[in-house]
Amino acid sequence: MINDKLPKIWYGGDYNPEQWDKEIMNEDLRMFKLAGIDVATINVFSWALLQPSEDIYDFTWLDDIIERLYASGTYVCLATSTGAHPAWMARKYPDVLRVDFEGRKRKFGARHNSCPNSPTYRKYSERIAEKLAERYKDHPAILIWHISNEYGGYCYCDQCADGFRTWLQARYATLGQVNKAWNTNFWGHTFYDWEDIVPPNALSEEWAGDNTCFQGISLDYRRFMSDSLLECYKLEYDAIKKHTPELPVTTNLMGLYKELDYFKWAKHLDVISWDNYPSFNTPISLTAMTHDLMRGLKEGQPFMLMEQTPSQQNWQPYNSLKRPGMMKLWSYQAVARGADTVMFFQLRRSVGACEKYHGAVIEHVGHEHTRVFRECAELGAELQTLSDKLLDARVNTRVGIVYDWENRWAVELSSGPTVALQYVDEVHKYYDALFQQNIQANLISTDADFSNYDIIIAPVLYMVKKGFAKQIEHFVHEGGTFLTTFFSGIVNENDIVTLGGYPGELRKVLGIWAEEIDALFPDQSNQIVLTESWGALHGQYQCGLLFDLIHAEGAEVKAVYGSEFYQGMPVLTVNKFGAGQAWYVASSPEPAFLQGLLGNLCKEKGITAPIPPVAGIEVTTRTTANNSFLFVLNHNDQPTSIELGDLTGTDLITGEPIKNKLTLPPKGVLILEKN
Amino acid sequence: MINDKLPKIWYGGDYNPEQWDKEIMNEDLRMFKLAGIDVATINVFSWALLQPSEDIYDFTWLDDIIERLYASGTYVCLATSTGAHPAWMARKYPDVLRVDFEGRKRKFGARHNSCPNSPTYRKYSERIAEKLAERYKDHPAILIWHISNEYGGYCYCDQCADGFRTWLQARYATLGQVNKAWNTNFWGHTFYDWEDIVPPNALSEEWAGDNTCFQGISLDYRRFMSDSLLECYKLEYDAIKKHTPELPVTTNLMGLYKELDYFKWAKHLDVISWDNYPSFNTPISLTAMTHDLMRGLKEGQPFMLMEQTPSQQNWQPYNSLKRPGMMKLWSYQAVARGADTVMFFQLRRSVGACEKYHGAVIEHVGHEHTRVFRECAELGAELQTLSDKLLDARVNTRVGIVYDWENRWAVELSSGPTVALQYVDEVHKYYDALFQQNIQANLISTDADFSNYDIIIAPVLYMVKKGFAKQIEHFVHEGGTFLTTFFSGIVNENDIVTLGGYPGELRKVLGIWAEEIDALFPDQSNQIVLTESWGALHGQYQCGLLFDLIHAEGAEVKAVYGSEFYQGMPVLTVNKFGAGQAWYVASSPEPAFLQGLLGNLCKEKGITAPIPPVAGIEVTTRTTANNSFLFVLNHNDQPTSIELGDLTGTDLITGEPIKNKLTLPPKGVLILEKN
Amino acid sequence: MINDKLPKIWYGGDYNPEQWDKEIMNEDLRMFKLAGIDVATINVFSWALLQPSEDIYDFTWLDDIIERLYASGTYVCLATSTGAHPAWMARKYPDVLRVDFEGRKRKFGARHNSCPNSPTYRKYSERIAEKLAERYKDHPAILIWHISNEYGGYCYCDQCADGFRTWLQARYATLGQVNKAWNTNFWGHTFYDWEDIVPPNALSEEWAGDNTCFQGISLDYRRFMSDSLLECYKLEYDAIKKHTPELPVTTNLMGLYKELDYFKWAKHLDVISWDNYPSFNTPISLTAMTHDLMRGLKEGQPFMLMEQTPSQQNWQPYNSLKRPGMMKLWSYQAVARGADTVMFFQLRRSVGACEKYHGAVIEHVGHEHTRVFRECAELGAELQTLSDKLLDARVNTRVGIVYDWENRWAVELSSGPTVALQYVDEVHKYYDALFQQNIQANLISTDADFSNYDIIIAPVLYMVKKGFAKQIEHFVHEGGTFLTTFFSGIVNENDIVTLGGYPGELRKVLGIWAEEIDALFPDQSNQIVLTESWGALHGQYQCGLLFDLIHAEGAEVKAVYGSEFYQGMPVLTVNKFGAGQAWYVASSPEPAFLQGLLGNLCKEKGITAPIPPVAGIEVTTRTTANNSFLFVLNHNDQPTSIELGDLTGTDLITGEPIKNKLTLPPKGVLILEKN
Repeated sequence: MINDKLPKIWYGGDYNPEQWDKEIMNEDLRMFKLAGIDVATINVFSWALLQPSEDIYDFTWLDDIIERLYASGTYVCLATSTGAHPAWMARKYPDVLRVDFEGRKRKFGARHNSCPNSPTYRKYSERIAEKLAERYKDHPAILIWHISNEYGGYCYCDQCADGFRTWLQARYATLGQVNKAWNTNFWGHTFYDWEDIVPPNALSEEWAGDNTCFQGISLDYRRFMSDSLLECYKLEYDAIKKHTPELPVTTNLMGLYKELDYFKWAKHLDVISWDNYPSFNTPISLTAMTHDLMRGLKEGQPFMLMEQTPSQQNWQPYNSLKRPGMMKLWSYQAVARGADTVMFFQLRRSVGACEKYHGAVIEHVGHEHTRVFRECAELGAELQTLSDKLLDARVNTRVGIVYDWENRWAVELSSGPTVALQYVDEVHKYYDALFQQNIQANLISTDADFSNYDIIIAPVLYMVKKGFAKQIEHFVHEGGTFLTTFFSGIVNENDIVTLGGYPGELRKVLGIWAEEIDALFPDQSNQIVLTESWGALHGQYQCGLLFDLIHAEGAEVKAVYGSEFYQGMPVLTVNKFGAGQAWYVASSPEPAFLQGLLGNLCKEKGITAPIPPVAGIEVTTRTTANNSFLFVLNHNDQPTSIELGDLTGTDLITGEPIKNKLTLPPKGVLILEKN
Repeated sequence: MINDKLPKIWYGGDYNPEQWDKEIMNEDLRMFKLAGIDVATINVFSWALLQPSEDIYDFTWLDDIIERLYASGTYVCLATSTGAHPAWMARKYPDVLRVDFEGRKRKFGARHNSCPNSPTYRKYSERIAEKLAERYKDHPAILIWHISNEYGGYCYCDQCADGFRTWLQARYATLGQVNKAWNTNFWGHTFYDWEDIVPPNALSEEWAGDNTCFQGISLDYRRFMSDSLLECYKLEYDAIKKHTPELPVTTNLMGLYKELDYFKWAKHLDVISWDNYPSFNTPISLTAMTHDLMRGLKEGQPFMLMEQTPSQQNWQPYNSLKRPGMMKLWSYQAVARGADTVMFFQLRRSVGACEKYHGAVIEHVGHEHTRVFRECAELGAELQTLSDKLLDARVNTRVGIVYDWENRWAVELSSGPTVALQYVDEVHKYYDALFQQNIQANLISTDADFSNYDIIIAPVLYMVKKGFAKQIEHFVHEGGTFLTTFFSGIVNENDIVTLGGYPGELRKVLGIWAEEIDALFPDQSNQIVLTESWGALHGQYQCGLLFDLIHAEGAEVKAVYGSEFYQGMPVLTVNKFGAGQAWYVASSPEPAFLQGLLGNLCKEKGITAPIPPVAGIEVTTRTTANNSFLFVLNHNDQPTSIELGDLTGTDLITGEPIKNKLTLPPKGVLILEKN
Repeated sequence: MINDKLPKIWYGGDYNPEQWDKEIMNEDLRMFKLAGIDVATINVFSWALLQPSEDIYDFTWLDDIIERLYASGTYVCLATSTGAHPAWMARKYPDVLRVDFEGRKRKFGARHNSCPNSPTYRKYSERIAEKLAERYKDHPAILIWHISNEYGGYCYCDQCADGFRTWLQARYATLGQVNKAWNTNFWGHTFYDWEDIVPPNALSEEWAGDNTCFQGISLDYRRFMSDSLLECYKLEYDAIKKHTPELPVTTNLMGLYKELDYFKWAKHLDVISWDNYPSFNTPISLTAMTHDLMRGLKEGQPFMLMEQTPSQQNWQPYNSLKRPGMMKLWSYQAVARGADTVMFFQLRRSVGACEKYHGAVIEHVGHEHTRVFRECAELGAELQTLSDKLLDARVNTRVGIVYDWENRWAVELSSGPTVALQYVDEVHKYYDALFQQNIQANLISTDADFSNYDIIIAPVLYMVKKGFAKQIEHFVHEGGTFLTTFFSGIVNENDIVTLGGYPGELRKVLGIWAEEIDALFPDQSNQIVLTESWGALHGQYQCGLLFDLIHAEGAEVKAVYGSEFYQGMPVLTVNKFGAGQAWYVASSPEPAFLQGLLGNLCKEKGITAPIPPVAGIEVTTRTTANNSFLFVLNHNDQPTSIELGDLTGTDLITGEPIKNKLTLPPKGVLILEKN
């Protein structure tokens, strides 16, 4: 439980009462009660109000807001306000301003704008966090701390350059090691002095679109920047924990956000929280995968849905309204996948600046007689009904999918073999093949305990970190089923190729050698031709993108290419290794193939869906110590029939008993507490 | 009459004899006579020649050119040459150089390149204007002053930052008012010192494509820049007027150019002049609308067509030739809509640099035996024939369309609900619906006297300035028909939302509440379903872009949406208010609907076309104290028949009597002086 | 012969043993022998290794590598390593760093990164070249010097600005001449002090995509930058020649690379070498044309194929593998067109940084059992077989196509009449029309001796340099056939228009006047209608892009436009002038027309193909003092039959006699030594 002061699924969101007069706030509080809102995230961007100048702090207005919220029965998720520095600070201490990718020193403006290695920023952000903790540590309204906001963005200033050199010294000890790790002899970039190293940006090694001359320095700079921002977070974290060791602390993450290594960050968050902003045309299964990734950051621990919009966004090209029922459906999707809170950005629309057309529980009209408010209130009432039944429920599955930020960086920094390769897309293809069959997966890091799994899928495992190949071998040897794909096993953590034949360190367990890697244009494809029918798979399927030309070296060939000069060469292989199997998919297949393949593998491991798949119906299970809950979510615009088979139980929302079959209305949700 | 020294439609254009030797100029002067050219605009970019160094001025060459022009019978439109500063000035006084949107200090180059707040630029541009005025004030050749050239572009340097702060102090008096106006508490941008405010560009609040974090500062910076450039203009204007108070002064505007608030500028121009450069595929009615906007800047006063190309442009992607007859047709289009001059850029092609492939009356071949010259000479002869008959003629119409630069800025700076919304496109849709029915409209500012109109159309009236809602209410109350659309009434002049429900201050007069605003993708649409047939409208029509979900609160529902979850909600309403009507169109309809709607409204007000519409035929009327002239322009590539009905009169060009009907040749023009 | 130490077609490529340990190098050397590799290009990017600090040089490792190569029988192409400066130099002497087009001072990174006017770069690049020459001048391994690498890129720093002014003083003597040459009076850019002139980039006169306000300064800056980089090359060249006057010196060019005037560079190279990287979809005839251009740089002297990939590239969007046989076919294509070497980038793949996925003879797997290696070894064996038979062979043809870098710059800097005009495309259209008919052409400069040719084709001869029109007139007068196209004869070397009617100085020889130039959109076209059937031409053909409206002034009209208002005006003319003919093609025709036209012209001159054309078959002839060799290359994926007619001879690779006809396998090659 995140905080047992509020033993239910928290319901609330961002609230900026400092923009409003007292009468409006009174109205807001009244409506919060109507909507069942019980948590407000406040103080996210109020640094300039709290600290109007270097030596003056003013918390009186915040005292008042917290008091009034608490008096009206609303708890507080208290932010530290450091997501944007005050204007006076930028003028007085320009070191807080970033230098951007183009090498330009920025001026005051925007947000998430502070150099993470700025001494001034670090000093004052830590200080304000500590002052807030000191002041409110005993306030009963506070449920959780929310440090800064959506950390992100890189800086390339001189103090970051200095910090980078120190970071490198800690990692590599000597310049010789740096030169080797980055292969600087290529193009004569050998460094003889630490001062020769400058941040890789548009003025030095990189150019727009993840392009670099030296992958080594670019990878390390991403690591360094992720660490630098994490360092800022940790300074605030430690300052708070000194005063409120018992209160949980988080910062809101951004799902698949590329620039920060969230698995590394997660170690320093008490609870994961994240902001979910799918577009109108985002695949349902991609949102599902992102929830699962956020759940995976702390190995299955329930997370907070910190932000979603009640109605529409403002920053997408075409900001369609969430259709009736959609907000509720997507909220339950989060819960179905591990969220123990449902929170919005935002509780009330702002009157000015760039987010004023972002949806809110309370719209500009200011009253409760709106479709959006009614839907929010309906959900609020349901969440009250659910009480604490779902809290701390876990997802149990024996299927793991490896997701690795550093690997993603390396894949997308690669010059060749194709610009079309996107790491997330390839991971999603495998995830979706399971999703469509109602089989859940955990998204796991390369540090995960593989013994928890029967099947581990690692699409495009391009970078193999130290010891990871051994870990996979052990997993397979002990009976596990491992699957990886084309463009895997190529490099080490520094993007240095493992010589001796692809897939490098994975060659032994996979029993293959990839001699060449072909890349075709987007309108070109090849075929996967099965050597014989196997379970759901028979005949042939399309594949595209990249094409490893592999030789079986012990592995069994399950399918071969259907055309090109490598027609007849293996495209799908399985290697028996110890008690397990290691699979290799040498190209990027169409969905039907992946569903068949993963269906077969799951079947062999006895992994089954709780109920049969139906198009547009999402199914998950969460389990507590005492109960098991089946979530059935209808994403269709039509009523849809569901066969439950032997499953029986109680509808958690209505309390009605359920068995045999049922029909879910459009956007309808069933939470079935199993008998 | 602009200047009664030349009581006819002026015919001429830009001329750069300083590039040529005397023999060539002699030839030019000879050909001017052949073509009927009587005005030459000179000295547009000659500052460096006039002032070769800080302390030296040399007018002798200009004296000579003016003398020779005048001696040959050509009058002069005398430019002040300040559209580009001299190279020596940029080196000696770098304050004249701009800092661009990307934050880069520019070096010498290009044109329209001076910082409008540069003390050096202001001092020397004012001085050269005054010196020219002193020197040529009594010269009989001078018809009009032409200050600088096509003012435009913004600067973001430190002296502009200082100027901006001063401008803000004048507008807001206190920082508290600024903070409130810009809602700076959002994202913690509260200012405590004027020096904390920096210009909004790519280094601070904005990014390319009209994107900003804070609409308030971005709007004010646009106002400030428009004012700063206007200030430069006014310094020259005043310097000139000291010496030649009787000579008219203008600067050439650029039609729909976005960056300057031309309604504000127009107050300081004695006569409007503008440069018309339609592309091969610009809709005829968009050019027409732009002429009408230019005419509207000074409430109907005839304007100057200062520039158009006789043949082709050089700066468009594909610079097609104007087809035979097209130059003449488009020249008469300008006259038909209020122009009292027909002038070209340029009279002779330059030999080098980037505009040498821009069309000219005299081409590089240098003689008169060209198609282009012949067409120019033919038009010149006709304009001689017309004499002064059309001068000072006005357009009389009871239909006004509101066009507002500040509103356009605000609409296009908005983050959400859709990137597809373009203010000019929406205004043009309504204009075009009238144009296609031969009904003229005036383009008017929000300051216009509405009592001159029966119908006022204000598409996307997003920003409602102080007092404007009252003005509209008064207009409707007194019997006027007002029409506005989706995304109207949302914000005040600082882009701060009017709370209490859209369309804010317009809600009362419109009798509706817009609860939500849906945005769809460009390939999606909805339908406008009429509740009953009405005049030209029946059945259903397509609509797209944005979709207000409105509730009638007193208004009558004339049409409803045909699909989506808001099927059946109103999409077209009319509210009776006092003696008038206020219409609301909640989405962006297809042309057929708008033609039907505006046709119906005009019919109710007894507003009719002079002759029935024919495809490809443009029709306007201009009226003097004594006469009324019907212009009929055939934009078709085929001969086209026109029914005149009861209209009779005289063909102003041929002197022939006209009645019943006639056939216009392709690109043919009739100016009918009505009996 | 490039160097008679190795009297055969050299076979080798770039090799970076400094990245490897000795065991790997031993393996490499073993495999070189297996593959028939006899030349290694080394030391291309080793400056930082050779000169670890300002005062220390270390050649010991290079001594060792050269020794080991030589000991194993591999010769050396020795690079000077100056393609990228060391990191310490950038920090200690920032003058070596460039300022880019956007005006940004760069930091250390990338390659080809040195300011060509940097005193530091010039001093130390010359010094290292001299030290290398001193040290290795007597080493028997060295076959040739390879200065720097792929020179390119421009700089816009202050020292370049100074250098530019000096360069201008040498070219123009006075500022008055500069002002005239650039027509600075346009837009008031008159210069009164040399210091007022700044480099034209995004901060001054230019903007991205070859756009400029003043073509004059932009053209001269390109000339100056080409000269500046050439100056760097020459410093190294002279330093080397002091010590090894007998060894040839080259630098690797880049084919159609736009930024350097290779005809000017070629004068300072002992032998041309270049890097050939066609994409999967590059037309075969464009690669052929580029080979011919490289051969043309030194008037037919055989050149070196310095780089090509054995398998795939890394920097294209989709890096497809070279299909089986393709590498060999394309290698022979180079030989067929004048190459006396076949060399690769690279002999071994690097382990890290941005080119590690660039193909190599030795792949990351590190052994010889790969498809790529086998194909390389097969070719190596064949080249051994060929021995010295093809060395120094020349191409004899009486058809010349003018290619001019300065003209290309001017065409593409032009503002108007269309953005779609690409110089290379237009040249290639004419080249391809000959290529498809098995007729060879030389690519020649404007300085070439035209008396070597019967037909000279000069597509889009926009810029006519001083004396060039006279040269053409003389050529035609003496009986030559000259052909040019639309948009020709317009300007002089400074992009100043030749007044008096297009095509300016060419008007007399062509007997036409181009009154106007129409430009249409890409989806629009016109027709070429023949006035009567003529040889292969009859009926009508499509044309597009630009359309000169010409009048025959003595020329005979062979075809007219089929539509638009200039229907019936000439589109193809021929003018009899002295004993010859001058042709004008007024628009850009479809391929069928050009094949017919050029076929007719060749027929009239008795220029015939050695064997009849077959689709997909490329045919060339090279001739030595004693022999003539016919190359027949099958680019098809199918076996293809070839009719040899009366030709008989010996297959140079197999030694078999050949006559009548033969069938070439897919990607097959025949080198027929004629009887």
